[in-house]
Amino acid sequence: MSSIDASTTRDSGKTAPESGHPPPPPLVNFFGVDFALRLLLFASTISALIVMVTSKQTKLIPTSLSPPFPAYVSRAAKFNHSPAFIYTVAALAVTCFYSIITIFTSAFVISNPFPSTKMLFNMILFDALMAGIMASATGATGGVAYIGLKGNSHVNWNKICNVYDKFCRHIGASALVSLIASIILVILVIVSSYSLYRRS
Amino acid sequence: MSSIDASTTRDSGKTAPESGHPPPPPLVNFFGVDFALRLLLFASTISALIVMVTSKQTKLIPTSLSPPFPAYVSRAAKFNHSPAFIYTVAALAVTCFYSIITIFTSAFVISNPFPSTKMLFNMILFDALMAGIMASATGATGGVAYIGLKGNSHVNWNKICNVYDKFCRHIGASALVSLIASIILVILVIVSSYSLYRRS
Repeated sequence: MSSIDASTTRDSGKTAPESGHPPPPPLVNFFGVDFALRLLLFASTISALIVMVTSKQTKLIPTSLSPPFPAYVSRAAKFNHSPAFIYTVAALAVTCFYSIITIFTSAFVISNPFPSTKMLFNMILFDALMAGIMASATGATGGVAYIGLKGNSHVNWNKICNVYDKFCRHIGASALVSLIASIILVILVIVSSYSLYRRS
Repeated sequence: MSSIDASTTRDSGKTAPESGHPPPPPLVNFFGVDFALRLLLFASTISALIVMVTSKQTKLIPTSLSPPFPAYVSRAAKFNHSPAFIYTVAALAVTCFYSIITIFTSAFVISNPFPSTKMLFNMILFDALMAGIMASATGATGGVAYIGLKGNSHVNWNKICNVYDKFCRHIGASALVSLIASIILVILVIVSSYSLYRRS
């Protein structure tokens, strides 16, 4: 129904200059870019999710300082020891699921040269929400991971990345890929709104 | 003024089907809402910024545990002891400055009943970028503030909010108001894209 409306508008637009109306809006379809970006979003969120979830590392930590009787205790570092990392895993899972749904939406739309503007608006709406969620999750992970990397001498929070090296590498990589996912979501908002602008 | 324009559109919409042309796009102007939201954004960012910057608290911390000779050292908690809080202050300052500029832009546009769609697109672009920056700053502050509030027993990061109560109240209030600012920015993206959708 929307494609019929769009073609009607185009037809009337073509005859418009003769009758003194403004020229028709140029036909633009950025859904190829949109589709590629959504595939990239899926790849980045699923990889960040897997890297974050598989970050568990167990180390033997010395508990007694007397050298003749060194006592060690096995302590694990896992993502679910920090609420910030749990939030990030949840945000990544939601965004990954969202990207799968919108990949199909985008693929469905590519076949239609005149996507409805209502759909573009809906995509901007949900992309903007998801961008906010992913950006806040990236910020939370980055803030906590930085303390793990450098520590904070003012409040005696010791760095842990000298002990849990693999854990820190996983968290750092996940934070970086989450940042990329956030940037992709902001670009998706801009691409959709540019399509809407060219259609207006 | 906007009510006059709205009635004009309604009248022209009524006459359109008779002349065979498609009805003109309905005249919508959400710049009143836009202006109000930008004022709110300015208020929230400036208050969050002031609350964050004035969070300094100095306490006497006991250094010696022997009761006959208690030694105290004066230690301050400031926002610039944490990189996450410094980033948040920078993001709040940038967003506050941005809100001042766009308040004037929005006020200028209110006088024009037909704002250009290019301007709407530019507003979506910058609002989306700012929403990403503010959301990540809110996430970073929230992540670090939560450790300050609850601590993390897995890595021996002690909570500090039992000592620096005023500091923690300031940081918590600032994080909450930053969250409101992020939500306002996402709503601004949605309002601008809805205007663009109604104009298309």
